[in-house]
Amino acid sequence: MPEAIIISTGSELMYGRVRDDNAHFLSGRLFDRGFKVRRHVAVGDDREDIGRAASESIAHADVVLLTGGLGPTNDDLTTETLASLYGLVIEIHEPSRRRMDEFFSSMNRSAIGGDSKMVSVPRNAAVFPNDIGLAVGYALEVDGKILIVMPGVPREMRWMFDTHVMSYLANRFGLIERGFLAVRVAMMREAEVDAAVRSLPALTDDVEWGITTRPGINTLTFLQKEGRPFDGPVLIEALHRVFGDNMLANSSASMEDEVVALLVEKNLTVACAESCTGGTVAQLITDIPGSSRVFMGGVVAYGNAMKTDLLGVPGELIDAEGAVSEAVAASMAQGARMRSGADIAVSITGIAGPGGGTDTKPVGTVCFGFATRSGTRTFSSMIMGDRERVRTMASMQALNTIRIFCKSI
Amino acid sequence: MPEAIIISTGSELMYGRVRDDNAHFLSGRLFDRGFKVRRHVAVGDDREDIGRAASESIAHADVVLLTGGLGPTNDDLTTETLASLYGLVIEIHEPSRRRMDEFFSSMNRSAIGGDSKMVSVPRNAAVFPNDIGLAVGYALEVDGKILIVMPGVPREMRWMFDTHVMSYLANRFGLIERGFLAVRVAMMREAEVDAAVRSLPALTDDVEWGITTRPGINTLTFLQKEGRPFDGPVLIEALHRVFGDNMLANSSASMEDEVVALLVEKNLTVACAESCTGGTVAQLITDIPGSSRVFMGGVVAYGNAMKTDLLGVPGELIDAEGAVSEAVAASMAQGARMRSGADIAVSITGIAGPGGGTDTKPVGTVCFGFATRSGTRTFSSMIMGDRERVRTMASMQALNTIRIFCKSI
Repeated sequence: MPEAIIISTGSELMYGRVRDDNAHFLSGRLFDRGFKVRRHVAVGDDREDIGRAASESIAHADVVLLTGGLGPTNDDLTTETLASLYGLVIEIHEPSRRRMDEFFSSMNRSAIGGDSKMVSVPRNAAVFPNDIGLAVGYALEVDGKILIVMPGVPREMRWMFDTHVMSYLANRFGLIERGFLAVRVAMMREAEVDAAVRSLPALTDDVEWGITTRPGINTLTFLQKEGRPFDGPVLIEALHRVFGDNMLANSSASMEDEVVALLVEKNLTVACAESCTGGTVAQLITDIPGSSRVFMGGVVAYGNAMKTDLLGVPGELIDAEGAVSEAVAASMAQGARMRSGADIAVSITGIAGPGGGTDTKPVGTVCFGFATRSGTRTFSSMIMGDRERVRTMASMQALNTIRIFCKSI
Repeated sequence: MPEAIIISTGSELMYGRVRDDNAHFLSGRLFDRGFKVRRHVAVGDDREDIGRAASESIAHADVVLLTGGLGPTNDDLTTETLASLYGLVIEIHEPSRRRMDEFFSSMNRSAIGGDSKMVSVPRNAAVFPNDIGLAVGYALEVDGKILIVMPGVPREMRWMFDTHVMSYLANRFGLIERGFLAVRVAMMREAEVDAAVRSLPALTDDVEWGITTRPGINTLTFLQKEGRPFDGPVLIEALHRVFGDNMLANSSASMEDEVVALLVEKNLTVACAESCTGGTVAQLITDIPGSSRVFMGGVVAYGNAMKTDLLGVPGELIDAEGAVSEAVAASMAQGARMRSGADIAVSITGIAGPGGGTDTKPVGTVCFGFATRSGTRTFSSMIMGDRERVRTMASMQALNTIRIFCKSI
């Protein structure tokens, strides 16, 4: 199993002002493809610190991935530090320079001094183009090890890694045939997902696997063990049988991605009426570009007056059943559907805490309504955790209800 | 300036399943108190990797902070690795053991084998108690350097650092008198904030300072240079004069924290009507526990039908002015205020992109309405950036309008 070390550079990391998301991203990608990641290192924009991190890492890993320090300014030191460390000759990469010149002239500007640093690479390096930025990346062999250098801007680094670097590494380390599968399962507890996977006959000793948990979504990763076969399609089929509708169609999509895609596919519109989630469902849906085609809108009915005036929930119903009740949830969903003209409306009313709980309706009690042309359904959940978790889980549950409905028609 | 290195341990970091939030937190705290952080290192639960990270770091820093690997299981290896590396004798810390035993017996359970690891520390170490968990932390001197060892659970680590470790370090390194000030400035560009600070006569050469930017908020950090005086109150007064209402009252509060606190203080209620922000304002406000006292609710009026039916915006107005216009924003805010009965209503309608822009109203155009008992105001902004940034900045601008209003009355 090839071993990797990841180095991130940037003084802002040392000031604690920015999180090292690059190491996190790269670590996940490398792990998923069968690398053993031995270490993350982060250092500031400092020749001595970058140099020491690079030489120590190259001594202890098969591949070292370094991000950052490729920009045009004086504190971008990566390439010159590597050059003096390993006696490299730095040259301008002409195709990338031409591209940069074209970019600047299209803006009626021209490259200035430091800009050429962004297209300068060590002689004989394999260059990784940057289609969404200016600084190119590169790979070179040092002391028999592979050093990969990429920009620090997360969006550019991710694009470059997924578009160019992973296939470069797969070729170099013969990873290309390694079986790998990721699957996302909605709204099941980690322990349930774990037990379900363990029960699979298709899961042989040739498969390594793990679970990553986020509120409402468990991601399962399956990985072929070294030199063993791995039957992806058989495993997928077995997972489908076990998880059914709980399995998301696309392992890289979020719940809200999939909901919006399904609504578009089925040509359905949606509205929501939220109390305890305070707009989270609307916010998640409208985060997705293009959601305006399917999202009619929502009401955040925190106070009872909003429930009555905007959603038409009868005041007597709230008095009789309480604002957190399935009856009120049903009325909220019906009101949201009627007033928005949406095909589907979902409602959420609950007690997110920390205050507001009672003996019969403790913190974490959440009632849901779901209204369509064929009628209104309601259900309730008891969600454990703090305010943030109750709000997130309730929102995911509401989105999942829309998802399951769309799949069923 | 004392130099620090931060080591995080945990295989989940190497799998890319968890972000290294501990290094981020510690780096910020150490920077703010005048340490120079030279490096972050993260390694898996592996004797060799932990040992190499520790010895390399101790060679290159005055203080090394290590988190993780203090739990009861076999993959918790920190203390035993350090013991074999530096020939330490490990002993049970009796006061902590008694506390653990009491804790278990209060749950009608008793400690089992591995649990004693959580209260085992090197002989002569200074022990940091853990009031919110079981594993204690400690400090010891190794090769003339200081090594701080803390649990990896972020909540416990943070508590231990803020309660015990920072004052220990301040004593050891004489940081206790060092002047420090953080100030948050809302809705100004970083360059404007920078220029304003540079113009301050109160900002002498004795002060080191920096700016951290988040959408809508710049945080200014002022730090006394070594051995020089620092007049905090004078600086604060000068900053107040320059930034006026843009300065938040509390440097550790977010915009939404301050908005909710001000609404409570002034006994005012608020409602919102959101189009392009899709519920973000409602979500930010209702994230704050206790917001139900001041937040009446909101309408997410994505489609025009919602604007008309729920907020009473005349259809002819939308036809004549366009949904993204100050006239519609005014009508939305009035509608939200009337229907919710809130004292204040804010509205947002704009083009978040990536699609939907026109020549006269490009992506980033956002119109705001603000309705109170004394009338309705409107204004517009042109926000640069992608969908996420437009949505976030527009939400912050809406919140800031409420904040400034509350301060004015």
